[in-house]
Amino acid sequence: MTSTMQDDFQLTTTAILQHGAQVYPDSEVVTWTGGGARRATFTEIAANANRFAAALTELGVQPGDAIGTFCWNTAEHVEAYYAIPGMGAVVHTLNIRLTAEQVAQIVEHAGDRMIIVDDSLVPLLAAVAPQLSSVEAYIVVGQADTSALENHATVHRYADLLAAQEPTFDWPDIDEKSAAAMCYTSGTTGDPKGVVYSHRSTYLHALATLAAGVTGFTEADRILTFVPMFHVNAWGIPFGAFLGGSTLHLPAQFMTPDQVCAFIAAERSTVASAVPTIWGGIMQYGREHEIDLSSLRMGTSGGAAIPRSLMAGFEQTYGVRIIQGWGMTETSPVAGMAWPPPEVEPGAPDELDWRLKSGRVVPGVQMRIVSEDGDVLPWDGTAVGEIEVRGPWITGSYHATDVPEKFDDGWLRTGDIGTIDHRGFFLITDRSKDVIKSGGEWISSVELENLLAASPDVAEAAVIGIPDEKWTERPLAAVVLRSGAAASPEQLAHFLDGKVAAWQIPENWTFIDEVPKTTVGKFDKKVLRSQFADGELKVERSR
Amino acid sequence: MTSTMQDDFQLTTTAILQHGAQVYPDSEVVTWTGGGARRATFTEIAANANRFAAALTELGVQPGDAIGTFCWNTAEHVEAYYAIPGMGAVVHTLNIRLTAEQVAQIVEHAGDRMIIVDDSLVPLLAAVAPQLSSVEAYIVVGQADTSALENHATVHRYADLLAAQEPTFDWPDIDEKSAAAMCYTSGTTGDPKGVVYSHRSTYLHALATLAAGVTGFTEADRILTFVPMFHVNAWGIPFGAFLGGSTLHLPAQFMTPDQVCAFIAAERSTVASAVPTIWGGIMQYGREHEIDLSSLRMGTSGGAAIPRSLMAGFEQTYGVRIIQGWGMTETSPVAGMAWPPPEVEPGAPDELDWRLKSGRVVPGVQMRIVSEDGDVLPWDGTAVGEIEVRGPWITGSYHATDVPEKFDDGWLRTGDIGTIDHRGFFLITDRSKDVIKSGGEWISSVELENLLAASPDVAEAAVIGIPDEKWTERPLAAVVLRSGAAASPEQLAHFLDGKVAAWQIPENWTFIDEVPKTTVGKFDKKVLRSQFADGELKVERSR
Repeated sequence: MTSTMQDDFQLTTTAILQHGAQVYPDSEVVTWTGGGARRATFTEIAANANRFAAALTELGVQPGDAIGTFCWNTAEHVEAYYAIPGMGAVVHTLNIRLTAEQVAQIVEHAGDRMIIVDDSLVPLLAAVAPQLSSVEAYIVVGQADTSALENHATVHRYADLLAAQEPTFDWPDIDEKSAAAMCYTSGTTGDPKGVVYSHRSTYLHALATLAAGVTGFTEADRILTFVPMFHVNAWGIPFGAFLGGSTLHLPAQFMTPDQVCAFIAAERSTVASAVPTIWGGIMQYGREHEIDLSSLRMGTSGGAAIPRSLMAGFEQTYGVRIIQGWGMTETSPVAGMAWPPPEVEPGAPDELDWRLKSGRVVPGVQMRIVSEDGDVLPWDGTAVGEIEVRGPWITGSYHATDVPEKFDDGWLRTGDIGTIDHRGFFLITDRSKDVIKSGGEWISSVELENLLAASPDVAEAAVIGIPDEKWTERPLAAVVLRSGAAASPEQLAHFLDGKVAAWQIPENWTFIDEVPKTTVGKFDKKVLRSQFADGELKVERSR
Repeated sequence: MTSTMQDDFQLTTTAILQHGAQVYPDSEVVTWTGGGARRATFTEIAANANRFAAALTELGVQPGDAIGTFCWNTAEHVEAYYAIPGMGAVVHTLNIRLTAEQVAQIVEHAGDRMIIVDDSLVPLLAAVAPQLSSVEAYIVVGQADTSALENHATVHRYADLLAAQEPTFDWPDIDEKSAAAMCYTSGTTGDPKGVVYSHRSTYLHALATLAAGVTGFTEADRILTFVPMFHVNAWGIPFGAFLGGSTLHLPAQFMTPDQVCAFIAAERSTVASAVPTIWGGIMQYGREHEIDLSSLRMGTSGGAAIPRSLMAGFEQTYGVRIIQGWGMTETSPVAGMAWPPPEVEPGAPDELDWRLKSGRVVPGVQMRIVSEDGDVLPWDGTAVGEIEVRGPWITGSYHATDVPEKFDDGWLRTGDIGTIDHRGFFLITDRSKDVIKSGGEWISSVELENLLAASPDVAEAAVIGIPDEKWTERPLAAVVLRSGAAASPEQLAHFLDGKVAAWQIPENWTFIDEVPKTTVGKFDKKVLRSQFADGELKVERSR
């Protein structure tokens, strides 16, 4: 017996675009302009995507070609998200916060034929343009002076390209397993690696995120998307929005807390999605200014664990409930969401404990934890191992790079160490490269960092393992004191007494001005390790 | 450039089962036993599905074999839903309300090798067993006397088969486009036709139904599923529940309003899914008995349009908000859900108008309306045409039957006539076979039926077209009066004055005791037409 279903119906980004434009024509993409906003309905976005797809076809872009974007979160970036994969090419979102060297390396590795660049980012890109040998053309959104680009490639104006086309386009049939979008990892562990999303993975991820138990976004939502569209497709929100009808609020380059708060107040965002650093910035700004977050029904946070105090603070001060998600570039990214289980009522004493889990496995993703010896460990909430995932929106390889150590019999090794309980709630205790192996036992650097950050004397702290003759490794805590604080190593070690096992308490301390961070705001322990190795850190001992 | 995603990860019913058992091990399948309930956790259901899959394999069931079920909504039926497709065969749900002749015809057409049958249904099946030549074995759930079956095939006890197996099973790799489940249409328009769902279509449909804008079911829900599991897989709820974690409440054979209400009160169902007839039965029962529906946060209704008075009554009397869905056996079935748009607040004066729409196109489904001449009509809320759909869980053919007239260039012709507005809200005004063509214009039989049903004198009414020399067709209203009412044709025609155009008002009337209905409770106008043709209806004229 064979299926009678339309099993050859292809799950493509164009199917998403068409659903959005047809069923939610009045939903909007609202781009902040500093003091105000410019608006485009889904119908208008789709018409522009049609025009842009026609223009790219006319420019000779071929199926499978990589087309870069060097853009903020804007309406035009959304149009590129649909036009490029829809006409058969691959939208490669470039991280504007990388160094020139990294940008050059990534563009060359991906082989980007063209790059779409925002007005305000032309100078940044122009600085690296001489090294971008694969790029034949730049497409500039806005009226910036482009002379610095013109020496290296043809320059088109986005508006001119669109003006020359009709608002309709005969979208080609595309196999759902074709490449649609591309994003490089941020490279905290070695060189950036390219992840290529398929139409199928993009569609399935977007559909799964709409589940009430994942994000629950609907047409009633206006989603302020701080997470950059060059960072794992803004967590897939621009795709989910067109499938579910949510209005998109895009901050463009106006990412400072004052602008963010003005945007929320003016446009009545119902949801905001951001990394903890942004949430912290808003909280800080709100201490000194009158802000109106009353329209927000929830926030989502990801990219790094959010501090308990910040999560609690938003709820107490503004009534904003922040739900954490977990994922990575390799997982599209949503693989877990930390909704508390149904028996835990909002506001219950232990609710925050649940919401501080890293997440719970979402439908469509399979997860397991594996010991150092390769044994699959039980979901008992105590066994600690490396988290591995697989599923239709999990990467199975990297673009043009063989990295066998990242895969284990078809599962992606996430490099995160943690536990999973019997209902799929997982808690990441460390990155595998950051976990400290002391006397055959593991010490979680993240746990120590979180505990230290709770000290009134500490602004932030990063903990790395340093070589130790007796124990193989021991923790070194690199601490940034709050201004005015003057805690000694002994005092900080004492602060940890009783909070972790005694042997886990660091005896090595160093005081620094700031924890080095990656472009996406994560602690860059590579830098700390190399500073330690080079003798640049002054280490004090607490005992 | 090629995708790096795990695009070969197969979307299968086993992936759904495993997600449910792993992530929601404590969610339950609760089967009503009349005065109480028996419970099984998702872990236990999965263990039994493993055992049953092993048993079927041992019995020699081959990939692609059809295995029938002749069962109520029970835990064992859920186990069969996963065991049969998971081991490679096809679960064919047989409608227990069909005639013996229809059952025999369908079993033979599908080629069912085995049939799983509920205890209480053995006598019903035994009556037709002599004609079921393809059936080699019956698997009986319960301790019924099976001697009547034993003359025709081997009889196994479900419990014995499971007891002989381990609770683990090495599920085979299955192509997602393989057949997973099968259901025949109820045959209101000719012979029943077989629809075969694939693993892929089943998975995608289940995932899409979890969207907050579709059903929004989560682990917090306990879903009372009245809609039979032999009727389009109980609207896919048993699959969605395992993907989203909802507890399933299954009524078994206890479908009377008293039992239904006892079940809801005892188990605190949060959602109930039923056809309008069942909703009407509950409302009627509640008029005469104290019932407790306070646990229900919503109801879903489908299969036929729900009367306004019933929808309003549930809200006013019990605070239960009923949301209509739309679909058919051929559409898995969810293709539309009639949530009001976000600007319409719950309780707003026009909210009920929105909720009485047939639905709004759900993510994953594409819809259009087509005129009699084959023109695709605009989504303007006024153009009337036949609704056509396509998408990954829409059928593209029928099992072993060529029915070209049901398809139009890759779209399924639903046989429903209606309008679509500019945001994808569609309103079905008639079945294409029931619409009355009078003087070149269409008269909606359904509209007349709904208007007549609103008369205090009318219990129910069905309207069919009868031949007319001048106008080609004219409406004949077959009316069931309420007990004690004695309205004349003139009075009923007068009641319609001003509610439809004067030329649409029927002048032909007949009074009957009951509208003939199909096994799924829909008006069976075929019977009325044949009664009219045979001169069995006494027709009176109103002018």
